[in-house]
Amino acid sequence: MRTREVHLKARPKGWPTPDDFAVVETELTSPGDGEVLVRNRFMSVDPYMRGRMNDAKSYVPPFRLDEAMTGGAVGEVVESRSPDLQEGDVVLHDFGWREHAKGPAKRFRKLTPVEGVPVSAYLGALGMPAMTAYVGLLDIAGLKEDDTVFVSGAAGAVGSMVGQIARLRGAARVIGSAGSPEKVEYLTGRLGFDAAFNYKDGPVRELLAQAAPDGIDVYFDNVGGDHLEAAIDVFKRGGRAALCGSISGYNATEPPPGPRNMSSIVGKRLTLKGFLVSDHADRYADFVRDTAGWIRDGKLTFEETFFDGVDNAVEAFLAMLRGENLGKMIVRL
Amino acid sequence: MRTREVHLKARPKGWPTPDDFAVVETELTSPGDGEVLVRNRFMSVDPYMRGRMNDAKSYVPPFRLDEAMTGGAVGEVVESRSPDLQEGDVVLHDFGWREHAKGPAKRFRKLTPVEGVPVSAYLGALGMPAMTAYVGLLDIAGLKEDDTVFVSGAAGAVGSMVGQIARLRGAARVIGSAGSPEKVEYLTGRLGFDAAFNYKDGPVRELLAQAAPDGIDVYFDNVGGDHLEAAIDVFKRGGRAALCGSISGYNATEPPPGPRNMSSIVGKRLTLKGFLVSDHADRYADFVRDTAGWIRDGKLTFEETFFDGVDNAVEAFLAMLRGENLGKMIVRL
Repeated sequence: MRTREVHLKARPKGWPTPDDFAVVETELTSPGDGEVLVRNRFMSVDPYMRGRMNDAKSYVPPFRLDEAMTGGAVGEVVESRSPDLQEGDVVLHDFGWREHAKGPAKRFRKLTPVEGVPVSAYLGALGMPAMTAYVGLLDIAGLKEDDTVFVSGAAGAVGSMVGQIARLRGAARVIGSAGSPEKVEYLTGRLGFDAAFNYKDGPVRELLAQAAPDGIDVYFDNVGGDHLEAAIDVFKRGGRAALCGSISGYNATEPPPGPRNMSSIVGKRLTLKGFLVSDHADRYADFVRDTAGWIRDGKLTFEETFFDGVDNAVEAFLAMLRGENLGKMIVRL
Repeated sequence: MRTREVHLKARPKGWPTPDDFAVVETELTSPGDGEVLVRNRFMSVDPYMRGRMNDAKSYVPPFRLDEAMTGGAVGEVVESRSPDLQEGDVVLHDFGWREHAKGPAKRFRKLTPVEGVPVSAYLGALGMPAMTAYVGLLDIAGLKEDDTVFVSGAAGAVGSMVGQIARLRGAARVIGSAGSPEKVEYLTGRLGFDAAFNYKDGPVRELLAQAAPDGIDVYFDNVGGDHLEAAIDVFKRGGRAALCGSISGYNATEPPPGPRNMSSIVGKRLTLKGFLVSDHADRYADFVRDTAGWIRDGKLTFEETFFDGVDNAVEAFLAMLRGENLGKMIVRL
């Protein structure tokens, strides 16, 4: 039996192009002892994957050339040679970017579907992006009741969770930035943000100052660059920033300039703290309990943007980097 | 009786010049009820004062034009109309930049001289700069045993304390930067730093990478700019920076560029935390107990650089901004 997977062919310089990737057909062999074979149904494309395409020392090792890339995926066990998983089990795992996954059963986690929630949500609102929001907002930024919270990339998989969790946990005011009028409308309309702006409408420093006339206590940074500079500008004394990513610089060919107002970090006693969700597995049970509860109760809403087929996985990834997704970008396989 | 004080005449643009200041002679009036009159013996010039010369919203209000500036000073009570202080008492207070100070007794703190330690040390090694080092290193950066510590401005009033306290509290390796070969020799010779470099010898990123081949855990930042960028470069995972000041930018007329490697804050899970010593008065008793003990036991050493006379106070301030002091810059009055 044949299957298909997406290989990295060349390390992108700046913005990736379709030529940097190839969809490769391979022969599917049977699982060995203790292994399972999984038919993937959904695979994730995430901003952090751009970093893994570089041949650079980073917090995760680079993807290797001429091999299938990896990433979050949800699939169904079609053949099991392990007592731990059975045919038909729905599993979450890291063998994305391919139609079929095969490996030791312990690399696959059996999912218990939540009523009324699609299993694709385990890649977004019940998965890594939402847990990133949860840990970053509550533990890293130390959200307190009555805080004013600003989140960039607010209509994305992480940002949309940050804003909603902030409100659910007692924030006084939630402000978001996004890259289109439709997203801004989604934030203030559907998600109940108090204010939102399209960062393409002008200098972020001015737009944020207008949206947060009384300043902010917490900034959840998905974007970096001028967004971080703007946040430092409007922080109140003792403000805390959780630095999650800086998508504005991921495709830069020159080192992006840093904030020109770093000295305010001293005067305002600010804390900037970088984090990776992978360090915080101890919070997983809390995260699932809270998030599944909120979703069940209709308090937490989420969007998914789908592309179909492994042939369109690269295009889904590029569209996500361009900000064309609302909520989580997912490839249906 | 006449006395003299230093006024701010004009708000400096960029580097201050002597013309921005004036030594003004005034008539000295007797203290009122509850007040004391103090003959100042030593006054402090500190980097933070540069910020107060600007008409800018900052953590301390700006100095007013055509008035005596303020700052730390040590003097002797010459007339008291308060039961709390007596003639001859040595006091620490904030009415510097003048030969005589007059005010409510509660604004003056009586000092208990430490044997073998000059009272001028209450402006440095027993005063605000050393407490800044103590709080920043232990509480803000959270120094742990076996940390590798880097401090910039390491031969100054704050930096020289940071390096020594780090060693006394179990740091594995202490690295400093300073602005002359003599200071570098002072750091590795007299103060026992493991490594030091002259930041004028090349790009700080390269110099620090050579001095810290295995990375750093803690950075105490007195300088900002390229020093902070270099520290971010060599931080190990989980590194912590206490941001105390950024003297490299205090006289800039354009906003100084920020670090171009901010995205490493995420990947390495770094924490950057700004602070002001004035928020940490609750640590004063601990600080005095530890520091006075270390000085008495010969474990903590310090230098003072003196200028003489109120006429030279401005020159002392400018020389300090240029880095011409070793240890604490003090004006003897």
